[in-house]
Amino acid sequence: MSKIIFDSGISLDGFFAGDNRSPKNPMGGVSGQIHSWMFNQKAFWEYLGFEGGKEDGLDGKFIRETIERTGAFIMGKRMFEEGEIVWPNDLYKADVYVLTHEKREPWVQDGTTTFYFINDGIESALDKARQSAKGKDIRIQGGANTIQQFLNAGLVDEFFIHIAPVFLGSGIRLFDGIYKDKYDIQIEEVIPSDLTTHLRYKLTKR
Amino acid sequence: MSKIIFDSGISLDGFFAGDNRSPKNPMGGVSGQIHSWMFNQKAFWEYLGFEGGKEDGLDGKFIRETIERTGAFIMGKRMFEEGEIVWPNDLYKADVYVLTHEKREPWVQDGTTTFYFINDGIESALDKARQSAKGKDIRIQGGANTIQQFLNAGLVDEFFIHIAPVFLGSGIRLFDGIYKDKYDIQIEEVIPSDLTTHLRYKLTKR
Repeated sequence: MSKIIFDSGISLDGFFAGDNRSPKNPMGGVSGQIHSWMFNQKAFWEYLGFEGGKEDGLDGKFIRETIERTGAFIMGKRMFEEGEIVWPNDLYKADVYVLTHEKREPWVQDGTTTFYFINDGIESALDKARQSAKGKDIRIQGGANTIQQFLNAGLVDEFFIHIAPVFLGSGIRLFDGIYKDKYDIQIEEVIPSDLTTHLRYKLTKR
Repeated sequence: MSKIIFDSGISLDGFFAGDNRSPKNPMGGVSGQIHSWMFNQKAFWEYLGFEGGKEDGLDGKFIRETIERTGAFIMGKRMFEEGEIVWPNDLYKADVYVLTHEKREPWVQDGTTTFYFINDGIESALDKARQSAKGKDIRIQGGANTIQQFLNAGLVDEFFIHIAPVFLGSGIRLFDGIYKDKYDIQIEEVIPSDLTTHLRYKLTKR
């Protein structure tokens, strides 16, 4: 059965994105600071369809496993709008459900990525994502607000955070307004690395 | 030469303490959730002067090392007021400098703990703590606001955080309003454990 997961990079002070996010300023310009560990990885560039990256160790293994296990994505409208213009064709290689009030026909890309625009809430997106995922996992891609909605609805089974050794000082926190008693949480895996620390948690709804 | 360090437990959502802190409600009542890993450790109870604890592995080694390297403490007034009544005699076994507007004579405890009350700011407390520490490290004990003052003044050399697998939802964050460009930060050590994840960072002022 599909698990519902998310996998997010954050700063030491817990920020998922910077201030003043917009399609012209994706993630508020902080991606380089939070995701620098990924940019070194062959597995990351492979996923994008490019040559690149110098390393292929535990971080790369981690990236490949996360890609392999994911069968469908759900994301918020702002994340979609920030990515729509800059993402390469067929980045997700799966069905992507975008939570939005906008009515829009599915955007079928060359390859296996299709964006579907969902107007009736997270449970509806989840039902459709389950059908797309065919038993693989459903990844809540972001932004922070979308992840918070799934967490607070008690729907998340597992998550990864990657804590970059950097302070951002302000922006949008990944964990803001999280209901405190929804889950019992277990630390499942800790993978040290130079530019980030990978942490995996398993959640059991109370 | 003394390093300036801090060593704090936080929740997954970054909280150092809960809401409504007071001497009658130390840490806002969340210590059990953030510090549960410590309560299992023989080293922790040893430090308090009691018998107790079931485990004595890497977590205990970590506790002993931190105690051993610390030669003096600095803390804020609120933390002191929350602890004053409940801490056992001679808990700190070193000089403790309390940042406060209150004029008060030093409180000399039985043993080797003396609390000094400092009215003229963090640099003054630091000068005095350096003399007390005699080359050992100076630990900024908390609360969060005091740690933030030292971080933002560019004075911290190293810190440990212990991330408990729990959401608190609200309270006082350890890293709030941190200046973003003060330091280059390196991940120095990651120690996985069942009830927390120990992370050590080294800071170099830019």
